[in-house]
Amino acid sequence: MVDAAIQSGTANRECMFEAFARRLPTGRRYGIVAGTGRLLELIRQFRFTTEELTWLADNAVVRTPTLDYLADYSFTGNVWGYQEGEAYFPGSPLLLVESTFAEGVILETLILSVLNYDISVASAAARMVSVSLGRPIAEMGSRRTNEHSAVAAARAAFIAGFASTSNLEAGRQWGLPTMGTAAHSFVLLHDSEEEAFQAQVDAFGAATTLLVDTYDVPAGIALAVKVAGPELGSIRIDSGDLPTVVAAARAQLDSLGAVNTKITVTSDLDEFAIAALSASPVDAFGIGTSVVTGSGEPAAGLVYKLVAHKGQGDEWISVAKTSTAKVSMGGRKSALRRVDAVGTAQEEIILLGDGPGTKFDSRGLERALLVPLITDGAVDERYVGPAGTLRARAHNASVMQELPIEAFRLGRGEAVIPTSYR
Amino acid sequence: MVDAAIQSGTANRECMFEAFARRLPTGRRYGIVAGTGRLLELIRQFRFTTEELTWLADNAVVRTPTLDYLADYSFTGNVWGYQEGEAYFPGSPLLLVESTFAEGVILETLILSVLNYDISVASAAARMVSVSLGRPIAEMGSRRTNEHSAVAAARAAFIAGFASTSNLEAGRQWGLPTMGTAAHSFVLLHDSEEEAFQAQVDAFGAATTLLVDTYDVPAGIALAVKVAGPELGSIRIDSGDLPTVVAAARAQLDSLGAVNTKITVTSDLDEFAIAALSASPVDAFGIGTSVVTGSGEPAAGLVYKLVAHKGQGDEWISVAKTSTAKVSMGGRKSALRRVDAVGTAQEEIILLGDGPGTKFDSRGLERALLVPLITDGAVDERYVGPAGTLRARAHNASVMQELPIEAFRLGRGEAVIPTSYR
Repeated sequence: MVDAAIQSGTANRECMFEAFARRLPTGRRYGIVAGTGRLLELIRQFRFTTEELTWLADNAVVRTPTLDYLADYSFTGNVWGYQEGEAYFPGSPLLLVESTFAEGVILETLILSVLNYDISVASAAARMVSVSLGRPIAEMGSRRTNEHSAVAAARAAFIAGFASTSNLEAGRQWGLPTMGTAAHSFVLLHDSEEEAFQAQVDAFGAATTLLVDTYDVPAGIALAVKVAGPELGSIRIDSGDLPTVVAAARAQLDSLGAVNTKITVTSDLDEFAIAALSASPVDAFGIGTSVVTGSGEPAAGLVYKLVAHKGQGDEWISVAKTSTAKVSMGGRKSALRRVDAVGTAQEEIILLGDGPGTKFDSRGLERALLVPLITDGAVDERYVGPAGTLRARAHNASVMQELPIEAFRLGRGEAVIPTSYR
Repeated sequence: MVDAAIQSGTANRECMFEAFARRLPTGRRYGIVAGTGRLLELIRQFRFTTEELTWLADNAVVRTPTLDYLADYSFTGNVWGYQEGEAYFPGSPLLLVESTFAEGVILETLILSVLNYDISVASAAARMVSVSLGRPIAEMGSRRTNEHSAVAAARAAFIAGFASTSNLEAGRQWGLPTMGTAAHSFVLLHDSEEEAFQAQVDAFGAATTLLVDTYDVPAGIALAVKVAGPELGSIRIDSGDLPTVVAAARAQLDSLGAVNTKITVTSDLDEFAIAALSASPVDAFGIGTSVVTGSGEPAAGLVYKLVAHKGQGDEWISVAKTSTAKVSMGGRKSALRRVDAVGTAQEEIILLGDGPGTKFDSRGLERALLVPLITDGAVDERYVGPAGTLRARAHNASVMQELPIEAFRLGRGEAVIPTSYR
């Protein structure tokens, strides 16, 4: 596209692109924006290397004027977006990119890849947090998603309220709290379960978490308390019918005097399994597959569309696909969330025509949703790095307070507030 | 685990780890191994950088003896596995890692991340290819998965028989055939659909593919043939009720003399949508979301378990978790696939006890499934890089011929051949 647009002279037209979701994943009541902090850094660094340009030339993918253009590429336009951690609804203009056609269209795949995956994870994670009744959830799904996705997933889950991750690289890159676990292999490596527990307690002290379901859970619990004493920090159970097993484990721990020993469960849990344990004496959860794969919705379904370009007279012209299916709403937009007097969200209001910056301020009971993320190519530093990640988590926490209580029902339903265009 | 094992003196025990799937994704008849070529290169390069070691030290994640161990880490053991592109079934020992405990357990997350994601994609892609009736499928899903996963997905889909990818980086890294498309934004950028088509034909000639569904499909087709002439290479349709729209498009193209102009469809397709188009005059498919997210099964569910370790007398001791749920089969294994006289697969045979290398050869109607991938730390070069990717694709093509015809029914069912242990 860039090659043809450079040749036809349209590559430098000023354009507005918009990333949005036509609908929420089936049955979901809200979605959570994530990936923004990663994306801003990736846009800032987006360049074509000599090796890449050589490959494009050798394979005749694009022609010389395009190669020259790509060799000098860096994003110099403007980006507005919903803050990372924000809730969103069908049609919410999540990211607006104002630039030449070539500058903006080149970022399409990067923008959608980052947002679609990270939003999928954060939207699932938020549902898990909302049914966890304040009990901490650790992200432990690295092994169930691509090796790079794993780091992004840990970050997205943390933004949506997870307490920690087992992914150390996510700890290093994004400043997330990390935790470790012993697997069954550690127990099986030793000549007996007792030797394995002793090795772990010798290494980490009685406050460690012992995995008690390798051979027999009641025997494992008895042994764990015998080795670590009643000061044992925690036991982990990774299999079985959890409500039953957990209740028995709590009774057994208490009977052994280990009244402060916590119970962590990890066993293909998702938001429904967490909800089913709401009356069980579980102290902490570890979640793997379901959070890193978006709990049944592994891609958020965001699209990236050209919604306006400038005409001959420097005026903005709204554009949109108009054939029968997959119609979208053209035009430059801004967005507000109307809340009621006690601060509960009532409506997603999308203002057509003027675009971000013109109707930008919160007004009365309408909270502005778009913030400037990149201005003339310069990234707003508040939204990137570990500090940006913490900011996103804090924003998410406040946004979750704003959602109507019906948002937290796990059953299928429509978006919890309506979207209207004005 | 490594930290505690180093402290307890068990870190250097010789171990055998095994990656396998307890079951296929719900209703699937077979799975396809993928990721091996990526994984071997990643294992070869697996080191801890100074920055990473400093972070581990600063955050007291592990202690000094472990830091020293990690600083010197490189994998020196043996790995056997199913060839990339091979079919697999519940319990198939897909990857066997023979090394010290520490060397092998450190690779657990990497191995599972790569295999779980790539197998998920290849297993979905193979189903799409099998119902495509030989019509080429392009992988176009980069925007619907993490930005790094996108490259891996393109490679996995190619191994399972996809013809090309829109991911240029996958073309560059893995030598895959690439293709490009014009999006609706390219049409909308121009002052008219005609100007957009003209720009594209000027740039790429009449053999290009014009996207005809931005405004009105019949008008778009008429315009496409008017601009490019009846030599127009292809039209693309990305929305609508495809069987109806495609039939009308074919009739219209023929009536305009564009009898050789091909029809490409792309619109949230999956294996079921492809099957529904089996009687339609579609010439090529483009698949996005469904292939890169494993068509409903985004993680293959592989686990990585310690199955044996050496005892005091250098003998191998089989080990396995034995509590009630998630039981697995301990011991060193090898594997054969029994075929009948005409070469159709009949049974997955897992040989317990001796492990790979001892009952290794194909014998009569039993084909050996495990090959050495890494020997004393040295990677077999035949399985890595672009050449390894082509080899995997060729192996997959031959394996698909071997599967019973029932494997290609899309409806839910059990694994198409039984797994037995001997």
